[in-house]
Amino acid sequence: MSALAFGVLRDHGPAVRAGAGALPLAGLPLPVPPETWERPSLNAFLELGAEAWDAVRAALPPLLAGHQLAAPDDAVLPFEVADYVDFFAARAHAENAGRILRPGTEPLTPNWEHMPVGYHGRAGTVVVSGTPVPRPLGQLAPGAFGPEPRLDVELELGWVCGPAPAGAAAPDAERHVFGAVLLADWSARTIQAWESRPLGPLLGKSFATSISAWVVPLAQLPRAPGPPQDPLPHLRAPEPRGVDLDLELALNGHALATVNARVLEWSPGQLVAHLVSNGAPLRAGDLLGSGTVSESAQRAGCLLELSWNGERPLRLPDGSTRTYLEDGDEVTLRGRGAGVELAAVRATLLRAPAAPSGGPPAS
Amino acid sequence: MSALAFGVLRDHGPAVRAGAGALPLAGLPLPVPPETWERPSLNAFLELGAEAWDAVRAALPPLLAGHQLAAPDDAVLPFEVADYVDFFAARAHAENAGRILRPGTEPLTPNWEHMPVGYHGRAGTVVVSGTPVPRPLGQLAPGAFGPEPRLDVELELGWVCGPAPAGAAAPDAERHVFGAVLLADWSARTIQAWESRPLGPLLGKSFATSISAWVVPLAQLPRAPGPPQDPLPHLRAPEPRGVDLDLELALNGHALATVNARVLEWSPGQLVAHLVSNGAPLRAGDLLGSGTVSESAQRAGCLLELSWNGERPLRLPDGSTRTYLEDGDEVTLRGRGAGVELAAVRATLLRAPAAPSGGPPAS
Repeated sequence: MSALAFGVLRDHGPAVRAGAGALPLAGLPLPVPPETWERPSLNAFLELGAEAWDAVRAALPPLLAGHQLAAPDDAVLPFEVADYVDFFAARAHAENAGRILRPGTEPLTPNWEHMPVGYHGRAGTVVVSGTPVPRPLGQLAPGAFGPEPRLDVELELGWVCGPAPAGAAAPDAERHVFGAVLLADWSARTIQAWESRPLGPLLGKSFATSISAWVVPLAQLPRAPGPPQDPLPHLRAPEPRGVDLDLELALNGHALATVNARVLEWSPGQLVAHLVSNGAPLRAGDLLGSGTVSESAQRAGCLLELSWNGERPLRLPDGSTRTYLEDGDEVTLRGRGAGVELAAVRATLLRAPAAPSGGPPAS
Repeated sequence: MSALAFGVLRDHGPAVRAGAGALPLAGLPLPVPPETWERPSLNAFLELGAEAWDAVRAALPPLLAGHQLAAPDDAVLPFEVADYVDFFAARAHAENAGRILRPGTEPLTPNWEHMPVGYHGRAGTVVVSGTPVPRPLGQLAPGAFGPEPRLDVELELGWVCGPAPAGAAAPDAERHVFGAVLLADWSARTIQAWESRPLGPLLGKSFATSISAWVVPLAQLPRAPGPPQDPLPHLRAPEPRGVDLDLELALNGHALATVNARVLEWSPGQLVAHLVSNGAPLRAGDLLGSGTVSESAQRAGCLLELSWNGERPLRLPDGSTRTYLEDGDEVTLRGRGAGVELAAVRATLLRAPAAPSGGPPAS
């Protein structure tokens, strides 16, 4: 039996996927209230917490064997995103980005080794794999508005959470993480560079974030030790805290990079422990982005690094080159390890829409 | 008849407040579907958009005259917050903060005059007036974790939105703003300073944001010209684009500052136009913070400015002094103008909880 994954079918609601087939969950004899599966999202299931998640996973294998599985077509966004926080948890990515964007300074900011650095992203524009992504418009420089010329994508894991109480420390906090998706953090580099001081990214990231249609429970993922570290007590997680998944970023069918997620400095439990440490609880449906998974400048999860901000164009097998993404490009993210495969994220880039019309003359 | 405001009563659902009384909306002969009032939130009403908002406002006065109004006690959070974006739209605040936090550099970053600079905040910790706010814990410096010593509050307006399509320009965009609340942006200055590079504030702001229990429709607010500006065409808003409201920040019953919201550089329609300019739509329940309303260093909407980061303690009438907030302090925000009064925000600060227990020793 391959790994189970949970998602939502457009016509059948919450469902479990096993291998190439899927089974709707409504009506099955499972140890949760039947209304868990009434909404077209996994949020009611996420709300129940780890004991219910484990009990449902344990009850499913015999049920799957006794049912004809349908093709897992037409899966929709698997949960309503409550809050979305995107982190920056791979050292090589943080260092590369620092070298490119803040040359002449220390690549890592002083806080990086002490906490998972992150920011809130836009929950309302998280979309499911398969949704086309239009190139964003935006301010590119003072007085200049137009299509983003340096459109990038970041290869990340997304952690899908249940409720977590304020003050949970890292070992317990991981119990509040239900599972993993692949996450494409679309990034408009010119917009982002111009807008981000002093409050961080906003429109450079808010136009779209793509995730897998199926969520693989964290309990099924292969683990590996994380990078050595010495954090504050509430952020100390038991080893193996990392996840041992090979992740791939592909452009028009050609792999640009393969990286392993074990390089992530901060584990999902540590991300949760950090977020709740100030008194803020998590809600069912909170989504945490791991940050771009990069191992080095050459094995990196985004084009900012792979093309070194356009200085080193990449050559594709069809003879074309890329610094950043072009209209019509198809991006695919994949992830697998120890017999577990995450559901791919696929998205095609569309050209930018027309610019909005203007208001009255300047006051 | 004083201005109408919309909220949610714990035992009666959506309601309208007029003066000292409130009337539940369910069952009234109003030009919207009856299910608009079924949920304990205004979101279904927000979803309907400006024509329905205007029609309901027009239909209410005779109904209010014919009903006995109940006391507007026990109002809950008036809407489910979808995404929350906090801006930085008063020039004096941006300049003061720059002078205090980045001495020796230009107080305003180069982007400030060209766009509403902002960041996504945490939707899940927006609470209604009256909810006590515990002092947050957090990382204060490398290896140091404890209660925030410099706890501040920012006096803001909050704009409550309906759905807005991608690409709406400023004149149309304002039609997607339903109304206003007062907004207390609690800010842990030590946590914020240590965490914010390079991605902006996260835990320094995410523990709580307090808003009014009642939303006053934008159509009722007195307007005034905004500060002169010359933005990109899609950000040009017709004058008078500002709102003419006197806002007060009070501590334990003593007014620390009174400021007028007309100093805000970016109007609510401009904030919406900026957010949707990259292709991201707004959803019903999106909340936009105006940014701290400050007119100068002395007439300012937060203690960072009023005490100049602790260098100039404030003397209260009881003889005590404050640089930042102390446990037990009660903060009140008020707003009024031209016969319209926003519902106050009140919150008492509680002492910090115990620190979370630690994980295993360092790896």
